[in-house]
Amino acid sequence: MASQAEPVRSSSQYNGDNKQNGIIQALLTDLYQITMAYSYWKSGKQFDTAVFDLYFRKNPFHGEFTVFAGLEECIKFIQNFKFSDSDIEYLRSVLSPSIEEEFFVYLKNLTTDELTVYAMDEGEIVFPKVPLIMIEGPLPVVQLIETPLLNLVNYASLVATNAMRFRIAANPNTTLLEFGLRRAQGPDGGLSASRYCYMGGFDGSSNVLAGKMFGIPVRGTHAHAFVTSYVSLQDISIRTLTKKNSTEKVDFVDICLKWQSKLTSVIDFLADQVQPGELAAFISYAQAFPDNLVALIDTYDVIRSGLPNFCTVAMALNECGYTPKGIRLDSGDLAYQSLHVRRIYTKVAKAFDVEWFKDLLIVASNDINEDTIHSLNQQGHEINSFGIGTHLVTCQKQPALGCVFKLVEINKKARIKLSEDMEKVTIPGRKVAYRLYGCDGNALVDLINQQDEPPPSPRERTLCRHPFQESKRAYVSPASVQVLHKVYWKNGMIQQHLPTLKELRDKAMKSLQTIRQDHKRALNPTPYKVSVSSSLYTFIHQLWLDSAPIGELS
Amino acid sequence: MASQAEPVRSSSQYNGDNKQNGIIQALLTDLYQITMAYSYWKSGKQFDTAVFDLYFRKNPFHGEFTVFAGLEECIKFIQNFKFSDSDIEYLRSVLSPSIEEEFFVYLKNLTTDELTVYAMDEGEIVFPKVPLIMIEGPLPVVQLIETPLLNLVNYASLVATNAMRFRIAANPNTTLLEFGLRRAQGPDGGLSASRYCYMGGFDGSSNVLAGKMFGIPVRGTHAHAFVTSYVSLQDISIRTLTKKNSTEKVDFVDICLKWQSKLTSVIDFLADQVQPGELAAFISYAQAFPDNLVALIDTYDVIRSGLPNFCTVAMALNECGYTPKGIRLDSGDLAYQSLHVRRIYTKVAKAFDVEWFKDLLIVASNDINEDTIHSLNQQGHEINSFGIGTHLVTCQKQPALGCVFKLVEINKKARIKLSEDMEKVTIPGRKVAYRLYGCDGNALVDLINQQDEPPPSPRERTLCRHPFQESKRAYVSPASVQVLHKVYWKNGMIQQHLPTLKELRDKAMKSLQTIRQDHKRALNPTPYKVSVSSSLYTFIHQLWLDSAPIGELS
Repeated sequence: MASQAEPVRSSSQYNGDNKQNGIIQALLTDLYQITMAYSYWKSGKQFDTAVFDLYFRKNPFHGEFTVFAGLEECIKFIQNFKFSDSDIEYLRSVLSPSIEEEFFVYLKNLTTDELTVYAMDEGEIVFPKVPLIMIEGPLPVVQLIETPLLNLVNYASLVATNAMRFRIAANPNTTLLEFGLRRAQGPDGGLSASRYCYMGGFDGSSNVLAGKMFGIPVRGTHAHAFVTSYVSLQDISIRTLTKKNSTEKVDFVDICLKWQSKLTSVIDFLADQVQPGELAAFISYAQAFPDNLVALIDTYDVIRSGLPNFCTVAMALNECGYTPKGIRLDSGDLAYQSLHVRRIYTKVAKAFDVEWFKDLLIVASNDINEDTIHSLNQQGHEINSFGIGTHLVTCQKQPALGCVFKLVEINKKARIKLSEDMEKVTIPGRKVAYRLYGCDGNALVDLINQQDEPPPSPRERTLCRHPFQESKRAYVSPASVQVLHKVYWKNGMIQQHLPTLKELRDKAMKSLQTIRQDHKRALNPTPYKVSVSSSLYTFIHQLWLDSAPIGELS
Repeated sequence: MASQAEPVRSSSQYNGDNKQNGIIQALLTDLYQITMAYSYWKSGKQFDTAVFDLYFRKNPFHGEFTVFAGLEECIKFIQNFKFSDSDIEYLRSVLSPSIEEEFFVYLKNLTTDELTVYAMDEGEIVFPKVPLIMIEGPLPVVQLIETPLLNLVNYASLVATNAMRFRIAANPNTTLLEFGLRRAQGPDGGLSASRYCYMGGFDGSSNVLAGKMFGIPVRGTHAHAFVTSYVSLQDISIRTLTKKNSTEKVDFVDICLKWQSKLTSVIDFLADQVQPGELAAFISYAQAFPDNLVALIDTYDVIRSGLPNFCTVAMALNECGYTPKGIRLDSGDLAYQSLHVRRIYTKVAKAFDVEWFKDLLIVASNDINEDTIHSLNQQGHEINSFGIGTHLVTCQKQPALGCVFKLVEINKKARIKLSEDMEKVTIPGRKVAYRLYGCDGNALVDLINQQDEPPPSPRERTLCRHPFQESKRAYVSPASVQVLHKVYWKNGMIQQHLPTLKELRDKAMKSLQTIRQDHKRALNPTPYKVSVSSSLYTFIHQLWLDSAPIGELS
């Protein structure tokens, strides 16, 4: 279904706004959802009741776990779902002129009131084949929301999982900062990245709007351009600094120069080899943020210029009653440089009896990915904080999660989608899923039951079967059992409290704790088992047999 | 600079809206731009005049060309740049309490009126090192817009280039459709993808909102779920179809069954082997869109069920005066299947004397990337149209372009950023760039001059030098010379017509025509040469010498 009859509008007409008052528009969908809706409507199937499962088939990044993210956005989309008059007008212009007018009335009056949405909690650790979201309702309505739901869950879950992998790779005391705005897919891509990286375990972001919108702690100091914009100490027009908790103004530049000369022998550098513009930049930044100096020291030469200039200004700040924060490295061998910086910190600490100096921050931010962090850990390093951009937000290792949205029941009849690729066979019918835990609190297995089966009971033997392979099965006696889905939307209303982003982050961190270490390791992790009940197993295989082609072996 | 003092807000407070009335907010930037602005302001550098270049260092996808995209969004961002009261209030809450109050007044009153923006035309084919955008103005203002500009140009140019590479790979008569909404980075990522893939040479998108907002032709028919939602012919509650240009209603299901039996011998299938639900789905879709049937034929079995069912309904449509469109394949061996489908089309065409049947559409859409298209072309195939999602919009091969924004001049003094990595050395100072063309209309070389040099003249020998390597130089006598940058923003006003998206697409296609074939080929393309004038070469190398460390070889 297509039309090019409509003249191409000036791209400026709609001004790039995909939302109205922050609401994602119903039209953010694939055209085929609309053409299918018309076809359902026309053949009288608009009242058919369908159940669709949203799930993924494979964990990303060669890993064995995923974080579920994006649910709040899905629920709010469903809450606000509505075709506007201008949407209808647009659809009328692009769809075939043979479309009956009453269909547009139907679309205009369409609501999500008759949908029931079952979902896992956002922030839960999730696994392949277990539905993240199950939706029941009128066939055309469920289909219309497929694309926006996939859009909202796919990238959110992917980038939250990526962030969590960085979180696992880094030392727990290491601060992780998301610096990806400039590499994300446009403004909204950048905001999604900041939001879901925080949920996945990052500690802050450079993205100021994300800070404002989502309450994420924001971080940042200065760029190379800041350093190169200063040529010499003459660029500092105001030389003074007011001492901390005092009104006394001192010539801060003079104090810096005094410390420069004191430091030359201690940390072995030549005052005429440091870049004067870099020194001026650090002084200027220190005057602006005397309690927050994090100096980017690699613009010219880390060892001969950047680090000595930082120590100079840091000791001058100390003399004035302030405490500097540390340095940032943005190029070169981060392991080697961080060890060197820590050695110099320690030397200065001893030489001037400033114990805290050895613990100053070392931030690193040069094209870091998950493997870099593992490699740095093996080499040994002294980095306290990573700023991570490109690899984090673009998910370079695997830039798409691949969630799918599959019909599993229509008018109470289970549907199965067969495929020669076993991984692509769907699990039919309405289901209930459980997570079974051992007595150590670790998750043992996820179990999918048919809707009307009794739930597994703690301390009772439960048969867990691989959905497709007969030989794979085990009896599990769980210490405790968790129901994985809750009703999030019913009768036109949100049915659950939607947590704050901070609560979602806590939830994700807590859920991660219940996953065994061997499922989380970077190299060859053990697959977590997702199973079905004996009854569901039999049902799947009966449906499979029923749909075999007639008259031949296949 | 950071603060966690602010309690983390409910993520629902701002409702995910990154824009107000479609305008990207000024706060969509990295925090360090704000902290640097404060530092500049505090040290009296807020009136310094800076020149920054926005450029990239390497073409993406192992290619030798890039399409410049995102300029309109940049210019509109600059036009609407303004900190709101709530932005200021937020900044006050997260910045150090030591920040002077007058700075917030300064921020509140900040405008982009004093900026001058020089840019290449959007849609132009561009190369490494030649600035896409050059911005001159007050240092803090230019820095504040760095992040949003990089955000807006990076992904736009990357995905437009990716689209163009698909366009080059495909046969010129092949229709390319973007199907990536569900795999993009959130709603806005999806819209950017649709917009810039169209600019890069795609013919349409499945994204309905992108169609509405940007006038992109929208396409789509139905999904597998549509097919599986029908179980048998009994699902068709209305059996009739009105004949084309007539009021006569016929029993369309009966006509289909008649054609099914006629076709069994012609294309060799068994009526009891086709899936009845699939036939019902195609009939239903045909009743809704009798002139637009594109049937997805791989839900069960392409050869035994999907294709016979399509031919059945297609011939029935023909009997009723309508013309079907064709089929879509979404799995399996696309080359083999498309050849088979064309053979069957041809058989039907001959058997029933319907010549046009052999030319029906074959659309393919299974996880297609650039290499798949090259491989299909080598094998031979009959596909008329590709629907491409994941690989296109996520740019799987290289998910970030890596544009940078570098200070090249401050207060009329050129600045150079040195690096041990030659590729990272900046070209200092304000520049003027030209594209030199041969008499065949092909681009020969891009040439960067210093600001005050005379331009190269047609038919005169011009020395073009590699910016960093002394031995690489050549005399070029161009047939014609194009100035590459225009003033897009000055005195607070847009200075150029901003073309429609369709015009930008035409521009990109036209610009591509001027690039030699060997620069465009997929495997080992020849690098296009970017050069500097003799005078700029000397200037770079003088600055380089001047900034050498004192007292040693380095």
